[in-house]
Amino acid sequence: MSKPYVKLDKNNAAVLLVDHQAGLSSLVRDIEPDKFRNNVLALADLAKYFKLPTVLTTSFENGPNGPLMSELKDTFPDAPYIARPGQINAWDNEDFVAAVKATGKKQLIIAGIVTEVCVAFPALSALAEGYEVFVVTDASGTFNEVTRHSAWDRMSSAGAQLMTWFGVACELHRDWRNDVEGLGTLFANHIPDYRNLINSYTTVQNSK
Amino acid sequence: MSKPYVKLDKNNAAVLLVDHQAGLSSLVRDIEPDKFRNNVLALADLAKYFKLPTVLTTSFENGPNGPLMSELKDTFPDAPYIARPGQINAWDNEDFVAAVKATGKKQLIIAGIVTEVCVAFPALSALAEGYEVFVVTDASGTFNEVTRHSAWDRMSSAGAQLMTWFGVACELHRDWRNDVEGLGTLFANHIPDYRNLINSYTTVQNSK
Amino acid sequence: MSKPYVKLDKNNAAVLLVDHQAGLSSLVRDIEPDKFRNNVLALADLAKYFKLPTVLTTSFENGPNGPLMSELKDTFPDAPYIARPGQINAWDNEDFVAAVKATGKKQLIIAGIVTEVCVAFPALSALAEGYEVFVVTDASGTFNEVTRHSAWDRMSSAGAQLMTWFGVACELHRDWRNDVEGLGTLFANHIPDYRNLINSYTTVQNSK
Amino acid sequence: MSKPYVKLDKNNAAVLLVDHQAGLSSLVRDIEPDKFRNNVLALADLAKYFKLPTVLTTSFENGPNGPLMSELKDTFPDAPYIARPGQINAWDNEDFVAAVKATGKKQLIIAGIVTEVCVAFPALSALAEGYEVFVVTDASGTFNEVTRHSAWDRMSSAGAQLMTWFGVACELHRDWRNDVEGLGTLFANHIPDYRNLINSYTTVQNSK
Amino acid sequence: MSKPYVKLDKNNAAVLLVDHQAGLSSLVRDIEPDKFRNNVLALADLAKYFKLPTVLTTSFENGPNGPLMSELKDTFPDAPYIARPGQINAWDNEDFVAAVKATGKKQLIIAGIVTEVCVAFPALSALAEGYEVFVVTDASGTFNEVTRHSAWDRMSSAGAQLMTWFGVACELHRDWRNDVEGLGTLFANHIPDYRNLINSYTTVQNSK
Amino acid sequence: MSKPYVKLDKNNAAVLLVDHQAGLSSLVRDIEPDKFRNNVLALADLAKYFKLPTVLTTSFENGPNGPLMSELKDTFPDAPYIARPGQINAWDNEDFVAAVKATGKKQLIIAGIVTEVCVAFPALSALAEGYEVFVVTDASGTFNEVTRHSAWDRMSSAGAQLMTWFGVACELHRDWRNDVEGLGTLFANHIPDYRNLINSYTTVQNSK
Amino acid sequence: MSKPYVKLDKNNAAVLLVDHQAGLSSLVRDIEPDKFRNNVLALADLAKYFKLPTVLTTSFENGPNGPLMSELKDTFPDAPYIARPGQINAWDNEDFVAAVKATGKKQLIIAGIVTEVCVAFPALSALAEGYEVFVVTDASGTFNEVTRHSAWDRMSSAGAQLMTWFGVACELHRDWRNDVEGLGTLFANHIPDYRNLINSYTTVQNSK
Amino acid sequence: MSKPYVKLDKNNAAVLLVDHQAGLSSLVRDIEPDKFRNNVLALADLAKYFKLPTVLTTSFENGPNGPLMSELKDTFPDAPYIARPGQINAWDNEDFVAAVKATGKKQLIIAGIVTEVCVAFPALSALAEGYEVFVVTDASGTFNEVTRHSAWDRMSSAGAQLMTWFGVACELHRDWRNDVEGLGTLFANHIPDYRNLINSYTTVQNSK
Repeated sequence: MSKPYVKLDKNNAAVLLVDHQAGLSSLVRDIEPDKFRNNVLALADLAKYFKLPTVLTTSFENGPNGPLMSELKDTFPDAPYIARPGQINAWDNEDFVAAVKATGKKQLIIAGIVTEVCVAFPALSALAEGYEVFVVTDASGTFNEVTRHSAWDRMSSAGAQLMTWFGVACELHRDWRNDVEGLGTLFANHIPDYRNLINSYTTVQNSK
Repeated sequence: MSKPYVKLDKNNAAVLLVDHQAGLSSLVRDIEPDKFRNNVLALADLAKYFKLPTVLTTSFENGPNGPLMSELKDTFPDAPYIARPGQINAWDNEDFVAAVKATGKKQLIIAGIVTEVCVAFPALSALAEGYEVFVVTDASGTFNEVTRHSAWDRMSSAGAQLMTWFGVACELHRDWRNDVEGLGTLFANHIPDYRNLINSYTTVQNSK
Repeated sequence: MSKPYVKLDKNNAAVLLVDHQAGLSSLVRDIEPDKFRNNVLALADLAKYFKLPTVLTTSFENGPNGPLMSELKDTFPDAPYIARPGQINAWDNEDFVAAVKATGKKQLIIAGIVTEVCVAFPALSALAEGYEVFVVTDASGTFNEVTRHSAWDRMSSAGAQLMTWFGVACELHRDWRNDVEGLGTLFANHIPDYRNLINSYTTVQNSK
Repeated sequence: MSKPYVKLDKNNAAVLLVDHQAGLSSLVRDIEPDKFRNNVLALADLAKYFKLPTVLTTSFENGPNGPLMSELKDTFPDAPYIARPGQINAWDNEDFVAAVKATGKKQLIIAGIVTEVCVAFPALSALAEGYEVFVVTDASGTFNEVTRHSAWDRMSSAGAQLMTWFGVACELHRDWRNDVEGLGTLFANHIPDYRNLINSYTTVQNSK
Repeated sequence: MSKPYVKLDKNNAAVLLVDHQAGLSSLVRDIEPDKFRNNVLALADLAKYFKLPTVLTTSFENGPNGPLMSELKDTFPDAPYIARPGQINAWDNEDFVAAVKATGKKQLIIAGIVTEVCVAFPALSALAEGYEVFVVTDASGTFNEVTRHSAWDRMSSAGAQLMTWFGVACELHRDWRNDVEGLGTLFANHIPDYRNLINSYTTVQNSK
Repeated sequence: MSKPYVKLDKNNAAVLLVDHQAGLSSLVRDIEPDKFRNNVLALADLAKYFKLPTVLTTSFENGPNGPLMSELKDTFPDAPYIARPGQINAWDNEDFVAAVKATGKKQLIIAGIVTEVCVAFPALSALAEGYEVFVVTDASGTFNEVTRHSAWDRMSSAGAQLMTWFGVACELHRDWRNDVEGLGTLFANHIPDYRNLINSYTTVQNSK
Repeated sequence: MSKPYVKLDKNNAAVLLVDHQAGLSSLVRDIEPDKFRNNVLALADLAKYFKLPTVLTTSFENGPNGPLMSELKDTFPDAPYIARPGQINAWDNEDFVAAVKATGKKQLIIAGIVTEVCVAFPALSALAEGYEVFVVTDASGTFNEVTRHSAWDRMSSAGAQLMTWFGVACELHRDWRNDVEGLGTLFANHIPDYRNLINSYTTVQNSK
Repeated sequence: MSKPYVKLDKNNAAVLLVDHQAGLSSLVRDIEPDKFRNNVLALADLAKYFKLPTVLTTSFENGPNGPLMSELKDTFPDAPYIARPGQINAWDNEDFVAAVKATGKKQLIIAGIVTEVCVAFPALSALAEGYEVFVVTDASGTFNEVTRHSAWDRMSSAGAQLMTWFGVACELHRDWRNDVEGLGTLFANHIPDYRNLINSYTTVQNSK
């Protein structure tokens, strides 16, 4: 009766980045801003690294919610980009759903702002339509811990798998030998402790 | 085997505010008082905004538990108001159940003080009778985190969906275009960060 | 597929206090000592107030684990008291199980030190034998939050209901009118905020 | 060798509100937004209640820092308002210093965003010129606790007195009998627990 | 240039308990209620144990602030009790100052609710008049940590010594041999961990 | 529909220690280093004490991830040791799976660094193959609480039982009488509070 | 008797970066790694932006302490770089002191790893020689909060001013008009909230 | 007017370990037990390593306070050991003061249980007699953070320097070249992160 182990597969996964907008970012207070920005960019970098089809969407970006984080635009210049005219649940927007379907993937990796709305609503809708949903909890932000845990409980009960960007990268990569340098660079760019490990190691190696 | 996605529907939802009384408020220590009051008033405002039928109830209000928060009386002057003579579980009071049934709704949005009693007991009873139950965790308060998490676990295991007032408002509204100004005002009145976003945006707009 | 609402019934419930010993108490670091002692004594007082059959047990009380908290001995002078010679899981002790069965109750309210062992093991064993199990989380203590949450997850997944002493008292009492003074005294003795409410209320009442 | 007790005197005190702007508010993460906004408005209300001369100032308000909180403009329509063209330390702005001097007061009550800059710099400058400086710590906000404590240490070491808005109000008022209702209203409007006390008290009184 | 070591002397010390009232207690949120009540009662018990002259005072006790904690009245039935008609700083009340002077002591041990007002104001006033002031930080309560630390900084800078009830008891007692049983009982009654140590020790001793 | 109580059985359990490497240890920030090291060594000691077959594995140990903790090598000189050439999920390595199968056990006790990858991936794989999986949460470490809780949720939902090393030891031992001294030594070596209990007890015993 | 206000002056200040090494970074646990790295790089960037003479030093960089963070080497290719052969206090190294003296500045801005040693020792030594010392608390890291606060107390008591990088930048810059874009870029690169403010502002401006 | 920099000198320093007893350890709740034990043993090891004269003392060790930690007895078999018959302040015991004086040192490094009594009292007494006092904050423990900070404030105000064991070791050692291996071993034995650095470094070195 337990959830089965659905393993992320880089040939069958797409990434949905929902409402990572400059204005909405000021609402995120369950993760520190330095760390949150780093997590979002790490997820973007891994999406690009694994060449996962990625869909961008925003809510009311010409109003107070503000523009999409500029780094995301830069990372995905050719990705489908749906500026929703009003739908709060991205899944209520036909263009968004069409873009998701156009990827041809059954595994959806979702992150956004704020967790209990912009992430949870499309996650629940996608689950209801039979997709396998992986929520990237640390690239999603919200008001506080009460809000976060309520959202996690609702999504997990509905069948979503809660993951973080590092676990997503590792499960997609499977084996370091597929590309040691590539994965190492991804980690070094987003995990200071890992960067330090590599630097210390390399320094001693080189001093031989 | 997961919980299905039951979406809040403003035509099918009622709000139950249970024992938000002046005396009992002093027991609430898992949320800071400024924030808790704001969350309760936000839930009340959204109930009114979406014209959801709302039922008020109190426990022993002429004793130490104290009177209902006066703002709630003011917001809902015509709502059914059941001052229970002794029943701890509001669902054990016939008038309360009658008032709930009179709303004709199947979705119940519940909040109150304290979470593990005044919220959990009627939530569990309503679930047992087939209602769809949505607990507003951040408009419900209790003694501490141990108490809160025990209550959440019991309610979630029994089938309740844990939400917060912001998620409830968003899921009921569905689309900003239904009324941009109305929803924006609700958020500005209860989310200082959102108020700031709107003020900054408007100021620049107006200075054009 | 959710857990059904099993309501505590004072005619069908027994209390099991497992290993609340002076030495073991020094291991409890997930709750502050003042609060933990208060919670344990509140549970004992409510057991007595509702005349619930109560079973006491200790582990190795003549060694470093130390004697049972003396207040518990004083509160329950005639309760079955099983000083286990070695079994870690109280349910592995025949006398203990016999004492539980002798109560003739199907609902077991369990607390103890430490949560993941002295509480979780008999709770899981009792569930496996078809009892309805209610864990009193705030009258149970352990090393830290990692330990606590692991134990809660294991017990909840196995079907236990997580409650706290205040919720237990309220669910057993059902209606204040059954005895206003008795329940009020129980609360005043163990909840300083409630005591303050009563004192303030009574003072103004008397000054009329 | 200790700091002497310099008591706030409502006839000798002015209030300086420095850079409480909509944009800068998003930087404040050492106090929750609901509480921070409440503290700032409480300070504004007490300044008005005690008729303390109040000086408003902003930094670069036509840029990203954003406009002054609109509630402050509304509370002090006639207060000196210095929109600084660039000086980071308000004390480096001649108009601001002139406005402070024009109040004729020697006691300066200062709050602002962010604590270690917009508050600390003018506080240190004013101390250096012989003013008695009272920092309202809970109406001042900054990035995090490291930043806050560094700022407090620097200001306290330089002779500033660290206070909070409630203490400021009490020290200015001296005696409830000067105006029970006025002070009670101020507290009820900004301290939910106090509002509850008053409501409970009044209800019992009225029911006599 | 450091503060000299002023040692508490039981022949030269008095205790001032300021505004430990039922209503005001609901404002205390920097210490958990169980622990706070225990600390206040421990301070009261030690005052009685060491026969220190003790002065009680309340602020507006017939209004929302509520009556003095009843346990304090019971512990000190004959102590001077000044129900202040309005002065916020107890030191502004002539009867209170007279009562303090009547003790003939130069060392004042002060605690109360709330720390930055009811404790800090008389502490600062007493320091200004040459008293040696010892603030019992853990028997004093206030709104939150920002408020607390601001109050501590102000009092410490003015020359007050920050202590806790356990340190006060130990410094007054000087030598266990003055009365082992008396001090042990005081500790056992207010420190569960100490009670456990004594129980475990005694049990093994007795089992010889 | 609940998870049944699967009890650890020392005749049917094996221990898998995954990637407890010197470099990776610097990534662990959800548990303090002193405590984490102690928990890992406690798990190792109990594996040895109960003579559980133990499998060691590392990831890329000649690179930045660093060598296996030297204490683990010393404790298990003869254990199967699989230095994986690249597979991130140890279960993807045939030698590792062969070593697990060679133990002939159906219960797998797993811990490692980091929780959401090196622990979760083989745990989920083993569950999928019908093993009973017990995750030792406090001997597993990761980046932060968000990462940890996401991993716990995923593993628990898939059927893993979350435990801690103390619970594992107790459930394996069953009865103190099986070897009082052995278990006592294990606890004294890894739980300072328990060591203190034993020392105090022994001292009084010996002084009889 | 208070510390006077010593204002940072960009013409009279030098920056000392002490032991920001890859290995030592793994000891820093009082600040999260993402944030700590950001703070260190922000300090480096401001040193460069204000053209402050900067001195780099390392301890035992060919051993386990590891190489200097590579970003620091890149930012300051021509700065004096003293790889100390063994002195723990950088001030005990003649070359380091000579490099400091060669800057000709009297104000020293110091940060490093770990706070209580690599920062505190040279800070205390420099104060003893008459320098004005400004510790950048958030670009300095150590084991935990106990260690940090002990170090802060020692340095502050000895006359050091505790600041954070943002305050340092603001006090050096004095007036936005000296270079709006330069300072804005510095902030945008290291404060995600500030970047968002700028992006939102610019977007609305451009859409006019 | 600041405290001058008094540098620890291994030829002029003694260590006082006050009341690190098995029973009293159960009162320590401001530091986790694993970490606290490690800190105390680290201080003991450094005292031995630097051959500092060390004085041991206990309070009532034949009663509930329990025996001295056995590791301390083992580390210092020949140190003066004063089992005080009743004096709470060790400095009130003539033998203890005589033992301190017999060391002939002017710098006293003090740690103990509990901080505000067993550490603070002798620290304040020694300061009053002209000693230079260094409190090892992380090898001293007490009830909670309120107690700790009150004690730190009192000791620091009286002239004590707050340090931690790592800083003490570093300030005594001065230069790694005095004994690289000795200091490295001390750190590896008590700082898991440092042990990992050394292991990783050595492994790569050896693999050359």
